[in-house]
Amino acid sequence: MSTDTKKITLLGLGAMGTAIARTWLAAGYDLTVWNRTASRAEPLAAEGATVAASAAEAVAASPLVVVCLLDDASVGEALATADLTGKDLVNITTGTPEEARGRAAWAARRGASYLDGGIMAVPPMIGVPESGAYVFYSGSGALYETHREALAVPAATRYTGEDPGSASLHDVALLSAMTGLFAGISHAFALMRDTDVPPTRFAAPLVEFLTGMTGYAHGAAAQLEAGDYTLGVTSNLAMMVQANGTLLRTAEDQGVSAELIAPFMALMERRLAEGGGAEGTTGVIDLLKR
Amino acid sequence: MSTDTKKITLLGLGAMGTAIARTWLAAGYDLTVWNRTASRAEPLAAEGATVAASAAEAVAASPLVVVCLLDDASVGEALATADLTGKDLVNITTGTPEEARGRAAWAARRGASYLDGGIMAVPPMIGVPESGAYVFYSGSGALYETHREALAVPAATRYTGEDPGSASLHDVALLSAMTGLFAGISHAFALMRDTDVPPTRFAAPLVEFLTGMTGYAHGAAAQLEAGDYTLGVTSNLAMMVQANGTLLRTAEDQGVSAELIAPFMALMERRLAEGGGAEGTTGVIDLLKR
Ligand SMILES: NC(=O)c1ccc[n+]([C@@H]2O[C@H](COP(=O)([O-])OP(=O)(O)OC[C@H]3O[C@@H](n4cnc5c(N)ncnc54)[C@H](OP(=O)(O)O)[C@@H]3O)[C@@H](O)[C@H]2O)c1
Ligand SMILES: NC(=O)c1ccc[n+]([C@@H]2O[C@H](COP(=O)([O-])OP(=O)(O)OC[C@H]3O[C@@H](n4cnc5c(N)ncnc54)[C@H](OP(=O)(O)O)[C@@H]3O)[C@@H](O)[C@H]2O)c1
Repeated sequence: MSTDTKKITLLGLGAMGTAIARTWLAAGYDLTVWNRTASRAEPLAAEGATVAASAAEAVAASPLVVVCLLDDASVGEALATADLTGKDLVNITTGTPEEARGRAAWAARRGASYLDGGIMAVPPMIGVPESGAYVFYSGSGALYETHREALAVPAATRYTGEDPGSASLHDVALLSAMTGLFAGISHAFALMRDTDVPPTRFAAPLVEFLTGMTGYAHGAAAQLEAGDYTLGVTSNLAMMVQANGTLLRTAEDQGVSAELIAPFMALMERRLAEGGGAEGTTGVIDLLKR
Repeated sequence: MSTDTKKITLLGLGAMGTAIARTWLAAGYDLTVWNRTASRAEPLAAEGATVAASAAEAVAASPLVVVCLLDDASVGEALATADLTGKDLVNITTGTPEEARGRAAWAARRGASYLDGGIMAVPPMIGVPESGAYVFYSGSGALYETHREALAVPAATRYTGEDPGSASLHDVALLSAMTGLFAGISHAFALMRDTDVPPTRFAAPLVEFLTGMTGYAHGAAAQLEAGDYTLGVTSNLAMMVQANGTLLRTAEDQGVSAELIAPFMALMERRLAEGGGAEGTTGVIDLLKR
């Protein structure tokens, strides 16, 4: 390893940037940092980081420049006057796939290689391999290969392809699925309110059941690929729509709003009306895509 | 074991009833069956079941009477003229907690003990212990103890308490949570449509991520019990609401309707507006309960 490949510049010392910075310092990297609010760099300086006076100066210090800021707009602002020529720019700021593609084109115009990242972790998971933390990366495969070792220090890495928007799309898709999961869990806890079952007792069968049910995604994927939504169906849509009535009446009786589960049920009914009675619920996916 | 405790009557030979009947026959129980449409009993007769000519006759044959019909109304219809005096009635027909409580009172008026059940399985899982199938039971604890061995033959059993509605409430709460999970998974697959990532490839990280995230329920339960929704928060509501913008813009860019994830986001925003910025998303549960 040349000296240069041990050099990293990191812009952004929020909760996430700071956690990441510490792992590179601990691994012996020559780290230059910059943060808009300079005081946030002080603890890292004490731990061995070089603190740059400006983003442009920080960028000049290393061939590998990692950016972990609030959002895409802040990336544009922070790098406005920096010379990116010949730099390997890794942007792990959360954004949309379109923003990642736009940022990749912008970086190319300024002479930099570009890799985009989506962090699947919260700061306490960074630098803790057992936490299961990882980062989706997409964009320049060459950049990814060159810096693979450095990138793997804060968290495991998963490269999803040359489309710079791919990492962000994976990130957003998982977080969107989590939103549905949390909605379902919230509704379930609301139903159990005002019963004599303590939430921590109810949580055990709930987690166990949902863990088993995540496998639904494998079945749906196989059906999507086969183009046959009846493949391996054990509970058909006709039966599930009937069961929905019981779920909705129970919510009503318990005084719980059904707003979090009703939209999926409405799509199940639409698909059933369109002739999907022998399918599972995979057909709902077709109804979402405009 | 007396001869009588090996005697079981089962009403209802749909997909579920038939699967259950087979496990009792295989375990050597003296099984009497009845089904409204008599032809559905024929295969079981060939396997050793006694076929009763009427529901009343079937009920008279055994001290333990298990009912697995379409819905609560069909239970009332089927048992309208049967003499239930002294019977142990186990109703594993899906219904609401209110229906279970009503059916328990109805059974008491007719001189029967009552246990209600909610089946957490599809028919192919019945009689297959490795499948993880089980049935929630609630109502008469004495009845449950007396027939525990027989009840455990088709699937594992979990007794949730004397309130006859409790088993159904657990059942419905889990299925409601699953509805949210499926909604989230559907949205995620819709986002990945028209990309070069095959659904079966995307399913692996999706299932892995969601499996990890089901643990959210443990955190929410602890917060509910503590009455402190900031307990152990790693991603606060303010940050998550900001991330929702990225999720919604991505859906828009990918041409995917946000109808399945937007309702939960709307509640997150309401809670944030009410001052929950330092919490996680547990406060949403308060907003659901009217
Ligand atoms: N924290 C998490 O749980 C988590 C998880 C996954 C992904 N992420 C993503 O990681 C990125 C960083 O998150 P974080 O938790 O570190 O956020 P944070 O603690 O809020 O820090 C935000 C950082 O962005 C800087 N910043 C904001 N606007 C700026 C601008 N216009 N110009 C220059 N710098 C600007 C801030 O500088 P100042 O100090 O000067 O304000 C700070 O360094 C975000 O994209 C976030 O979505 C976070
Ligand atoms: N299948 C599953 O995946 C599953 C999973 C969990 C729980 N469950 C629950 O288990 C119960 C049975 O389900 P299943 O799958 O066996 O349903 P199914 O195959 O549709 O069978 C329905 C049964 O109910 C009978 N029935 C309907 N209306 C009746 C009436 N008015 N009087 C007398 N009998 C009547 C039917 O008799 P006929 O043959 O004469 O029509 C049949 O035996 C339901 O409550 C269901 O929600 C099912």
